[in-house]
Amino acid sequence: MPANLSLTYKKLLERNKSFALLGSAEAIVNWDMETMMPPKAINLRSEQLALLSEIHHKMSTAPVTGKLLNSMLKHREYESLSEVEKRNVHLMKKNYDEQTKLPSKLVTAIAKQQAISINTWKKAKAQKNFALFKPELEKLVALNKQAADILMKVKQTKTPYDALIDIYEPKMSSQTITKVFVELQQGLEDLLKKIESQKQPDVTILQQPVAAEKQKEIAKLLMQTLGYETPPSPTAGGRLDETEHPFTTGYYDDVRITTHYHTDNFASSVFSVLHETGHALYEQGLPQEWKYRPVGSGCSMGIHESQSRLYENIIGRSREFWTTVFPQMKNSANPSLANLDQEKFLRAVNAVKPSKIRIEADEVTYNLHIIIRFQIENDLFAGKIKVDELPQVWNQKYKDTLGMKIENDSEGVMQDTHWASGLYGYFPTYALGNIYTGQIINSLTKQEPTWRGELETGNLTPVREWLAANVYRYGNLYDPADLVKKATGTPMTVKPYLVYLEEKCGSLYGF
Amino acid sequence: MPANLSLTYKKLLERNKSFALLGSAEAIVNWDMETMMPPKAINLRSEQLALLSEIHHKMSTAPVTGKLLNSMLKHREYESLSEVEKRNVHLMKKNYDEQTKLPSKLVTAIAKQQAISINTWKKAKAQKNFALFKPELEKLVALNKQAADILMKVKQTKTPYDALIDIYEPKMSSQTITKVFVELQQGLEDLLKKIESQKQPDVTILQQPVAAEKQKEIAKLLMQTLGYETPPSPTAGGRLDETEHPFTTGYYDDVRITTHYHTDNFASSVFSVLHETGHALYEQGLPQEWKYRPVGSGCSMGIHESQSRLYENIIGRSREFWTTVFPQMKNSANPSLANLDQEKFLRAVNAVKPSKIRIEADEVTYNLHIIIRFQIENDLFAGKIKVDELPQVWNQKYKDTLGMKIENDSEGVMQDTHWASGLYGYFPTYALGNIYTGQIINSLTKQEPTWRGELETGNLTPVREWLAANVYRYGNLYDPADLVKKATGTPMTVKPYLVYLEEKCGSLYGF
Repeated sequence: MPANLSLTYKKLLERNKSFALLGSAEAIVNWDMETMMPPKAINLRSEQLALLSEIHHKMSTAPVTGKLLNSMLKHREYESLSEVEKRNVHLMKKNYDEQTKLPSKLVTAIAKQQAISINTWKKAKAQKNFALFKPELEKLVALNKQAADILMKVKQTKTPYDALIDIYEPKMSSQTITKVFVELQQGLEDLLKKIESQKQPDVTILQQPVAAEKQKEIAKLLMQTLGYETPPSPTAGGRLDETEHPFTTGYYDDVRITTHYHTDNFASSVFSVLHETGHALYEQGLPQEWKYRPVGSGCSMGIHESQSRLYENIIGRSREFWTTVFPQMKNSANPSLANLDQEKFLRAVNAVKPSKIRIEADEVTYNLHIIIRFQIENDLFAGKIKVDELPQVWNQKYKDTLGMKIENDSEGVMQDTHWASGLYGYFPTYALGNIYTGQIINSLTKQEPTWRGELETGNLTPVREWLAANVYRYGNLYDPADLVKKATGTPMTVKPYLVYLEEKCGSLYGF
Repeated sequence: MPANLSLTYKKLLERNKSFALLGSAEAIVNWDMETMMPPKAINLRSEQLALLSEIHHKMSTAPVTGKLLNSMLKHREYESLSEVEKRNVHLMKKNYDEQTKLPSKLVTAIAKQQAISINTWKKAKAQKNFALFKPELEKLVALNKQAADILMKVKQTKTPYDALIDIYEPKMSSQTITKVFVELQQGLEDLLKKIESQKQPDVTILQQPVAAEKQKEIAKLLMQTLGYETPPSPTAGGRLDETEHPFTTGYYDDVRITTHYHTDNFASSVFSVLHETGHALYEQGLPQEWKYRPVGSGCSMGIHESQSRLYENIIGRSREFWTTVFPQMKNSANPSLANLDQEKFLRAVNAVKPSKIRIEADEVTYNLHIIIRFQIENDLFAGKIKVDELPQVWNQKYKDTLGMKIENDSEGVMQDTHWASGLYGYFPTYALGNIYTGQIINSLTKQEPTWRGELETGNLTPVREWLAANVYRYGNLYDPADLVKKATGTPMTVKPYLVYLEEKCGSLYGF
């Protein structure tokens, strides 16, 4: 790199390091709010977080970043940069554009309306009253539509909705998603028919009481099995705490997970710990030499979700995984699960049955919940449906797709926080993540055919090493479609995921 | 206030709010490092903290603050401001001057040398090798002397050392301290002679093993008795966690304490919890209407220390306190302390015996450790002694004052972190805090003569209310000397503290 270009590049990386450090410090303060903070501090904390966010915004929208980026991109030797260097510049440019191309008036209006909408959504959900939520949701959607119109031009996407999707799943389009979701839905519906004709497993065996302390012991076992270290290990870069809703947060050497212990549903913490550990291992496994650089981050929400669902579902609901871990789990929970049968447990945690609530859905029907939300968002931002039609559209789709009769909007269109929080274009990444897991497992099996056998002995090294070598190592070097191709050798395809589901459900349900 | 003055004032308060919010957010991140952080994150954390501190420094030294302050102070109607308003401006000015009047080169040099000195001190202390520490300490003292020379002019103090003391105990001078310390030392030495002629209590009864879990129960009892709320109380504004060295940190509605549980020394956590709770109650008790304002902070290190030592020593080592709390403590620790005798416990925790290590010293001789440090600092910054003479001066003073023979510099001049950390002028505040407690108790007894009787029944309300009405309510409205006068009706005087010690020791040792 020529000296002046190199200097500009270095300055950009220094700025990015500050963003990463400040962002990860904010994450700690947020984590503290969810886990440790004395309740009296809530107002103080929201003021602290608002200030940090304001400082962060000022830093990341400072015109100097724009100038540095422009001078890099226009430099006649820019093309001589390496792939990694160009990607770093590209990611900083993308972030800078997303933060600066919207008028600050609009950004403020969205932030304010978001706060109002979330608040109103909570009340409306408690009262089962969509009419209360509707006017606030209308305003928030309208503001986000304005933003999407602007971002569409900046990002040169085909539709405004695509510009929103691009925030979470870069370069993914609603057209592509529609296509793969049609295939996914068809496959899932065929599979569902086969399952519904079989005898259902007894899921009540999962309701036997297990004290939180015992569930903590199980969680330790699972984290240890997956290779996620927590204190008092002197080399720990993670930790597990309790929150209302499980999440993962952190950066590189400090990535923390949380779970919730329901004493009448120990499986809930089992699978949330596996899920969050999947997220955490990805963040911890990013290349150390890319720390503080734009490429030193997860690729997309979809890829992130593939990592969590791989450990939660593909590994965590497999017969092989429980071969070694089930007796260990019984031991950890002793004597709570003494009478639990391994085979019955396996069938119960893999039970497939349509339901109304997304976050309680099984591995198969979960995707149908997502497809419904994607279709609605797509039509909403294309102006084909209006906010006040949402309940009726929602209920019709739940009837047609899942055969569920929605009794009220709290178990229907108001069940999720996403739309109240302004997260449009986010939902599809959950199902994309599932699709990616199919391709990953396919590829892993081809390259490491013994992995399932090793898993049976409690050895996750082949899985871990494959993920490190084929997913983690690329950080944010590629957009998700390219990463999937790089990691698995094929472009995005639904088939392997459907094959995986078909095989597993077939073996458990007996078809 | 005239409109333009009022606007300037408002702007200053807004800036101060940002400083307070950022400072308290930094405190959370620091607290997390000491209590929760996975060990792998140490480097990441120091970079996060360095960035936050850089942002804070930039914010608080921004020239706009200086301009606003100048325009306030030069305004012809400045004198029409209220006492509180003027104090807010004064405190911002003091802070701004302390942050900006030193050349940034010197500030950076001190920060760097501090890091080196701490690091070297740790090694040298482990190796009992002062020669290793000496060159780094020399550089740090020289740099701080430079800073003190500049600050002396800014603050118009009589000596450079006074300018350093003023950072921790505003407007306190080495001349005043020398005077009160002479009186204090004389009184303590007289008292020590009386004590040494008596039979010593058996302190080995405090070494009986108490598991950390039991000590946690005792800590809960103590915090509850003092009125310090922790989760799961829904109104909690505090919490207790474990660290190597106990400390208090936080702001208003989120003030946290820590302790350490030594299984062979349960009294250590008992008194550290009482001590830190005293600090925490002060911070939590500052006037809510002054939150985010300069006056909404503790007055000085000495006053802060008076609050912690009041609860640790005056209350916490009193016969009255343990009348109700001792059986409750036994109950909390059951069956660990079943055989502990209340009277023997009281005598053991009040045992007075000269020792080498400050942080292990008893209530009486502790002050002599401080007096030695103050005398040395005073001579060091007056150029009367040099860094390489420190061990010899130290050892001589320990022999003369405490009758202790120092065997090596790790139990001598290198025992504390303060000098390695650049905290010169800080030590005297510990003993000043003790002196203030004497006056406070004197005044409390005059105004609420029944407080000791109430304490016997476990009722700390009279103490709490008196402190709220006479100390907490003034926040940082006065310099410590003025606050002491306001709170107790008399200027700083050593007598009440000596009388208190004499009475207590006399009653326990029987003279």
